[in-house]
Amino acid sequence: MKDISELAEKLELTSFNNLELLEQSMVHRSYINEHEFKLGHNERLEFLGDAVLELVVSKDLYEKFPDKPEGQLTSIRAALVRKETLGEVADELQLHEYLKLSRGEAKSASNQMAILSNSVEALIGSIYLDQDLEVAQNFIEKYILSKTKRVLESGEHIDAKSQFQELAQKKDRSTPSYKVMSESGPDHNKIFEVAALINDKEIARGSGNSKQAAEMAAATAALEKYDK
Amino acid sequence: MKDISELAEKLELTSFNNLELLEQSMVHRSYINEHEFKLGHNERLEFLGDAVLELVVSKDLYEKFPDKPEGQLTSIRAALVRKETLGEVADELQLHEYLKLSRGEAKSASNQMAILSNSVEALIGSIYLDQDLEVAQNFIEKYILSKTKRVLESGEHIDAKSQFQELAQKKDRSTPSYKVMSESGPDHNKIFEVAALINDKEIARGSGNSKQAAEMAAATAALEKYDK
Repeated sequence: MKDISELAEKLELTSFNNLELLEQSMVHRSYINEHEFKLGHNERLEFLGDAVLELVVSKDLYEKFPDKPEGQLTSIRAALVRKETLGEVADELQLHEYLKLSRGEAKSASNQMAILSNSVEALIGSIYLDQDLEVAQNFIEKYILSKTKRVLESGEHIDAKSQFQELAQKKDRSTPSYKVMSESGPDHNKIFEVAALINDKEIARGSGNSKQAAEMAAATAALEKYDK
Repeated sequence: MKDISELAEKLELTSFNNLELLEQSMVHRSYINEHEFKLGHNERLEFLGDAVLELVVSKDLYEKFPDKPEGQLTSIRAALVRKETLGEVADELQLHEYLKLSRGEAKSASNQMAILSNSVEALIGSIYLDQDLEVAQNFIEKYILSKTKRVLESGEHIDAKSQFQELAQKKDRSTPSYKVMSESGPDHNKIFEVAALINDKEIARGSGNSKQAAEMAAATAALEKYDK
């Protein structure tokens, strides 16, 4: 376990006022069961950091892409703040060297990505609280917004179902659902037709050889209609 | 249709630099089909304003409630930024007098709440862009955070299903689902048993006389296990 002051140095945050706050950002809830830590685990910082991240990324995309509609901005943002992207940031910073976990959690690989990704949000929360929005913004620019070009080029932001869900939540504050309308063809080559619904109202249909493929097709068609 | 400068006065934003930006926050996408408006509709501003709102509310709740865990902060925030609350703000400001809609949309009542609530977010986006975060924060304090006490007292923030959904999205970046495990009893007094699942893994079960009631019970039980 490395000392937290090393992390501050790595982040060029040598003027950090309260290093305990930085330390708290690396404390997983499981650690608290086995040990004491005055400030508690990092989930409240994560709550705050998530919102800081969202605003900084939104402002940047708003300015960088004056011609993109909201739906596209939303899906680029989703790709930048998703678990996998933040997990990468955690790897770049070798955050696992500073994370405080229970022994059980440390051994189990299944949840590592979520824990690391959440600790990046908590880290952002601690930088924002101890320093200010500008310093948090510098961190986000360096480690997260720097990946925007790659996200765009690789198409990581194009997952029709997530994109449609984000958009439906923003526009109608509801979650899309999918309904199989028909199944046809022989067992080895079934064709599913699926409808994408919002508030039980059909927006569009799609079909494919699996339910998942048909749902993707329906979401893609629904996006066309929905995000103009 | 009232002049936008009246809205600026009402908001005590007489130093607004670009009134067109304020005007844009009141332009619904349906208006653009029938009329010209140089800056386009308000959805990009809404994208931005939503993130501003989220950060300001999160920071305030983080500071106001130092002892509440993340799950509770998340559900209070959800109650403050939901459609119904923002719709009230729109009513207080009589935003419908400034909103630019197509004739069809203006007549249809069904979508009014979402349109008004979205225009409040767009308004926040325009204040943030034209002025700064502090001015946007003043607006949010005056019209939205002022409702925190009422939200807490009335229990508007306690809807177990939404709370569980928010939390699951934050923690595991996935949406809970519900599955009927059994139905028993006579037709006039059925009992449903429902499981709340995350990533197809059962978190908890609940039962009730309708699917909806059983889902609520399952979500309540799941929250107990999930948000500690």
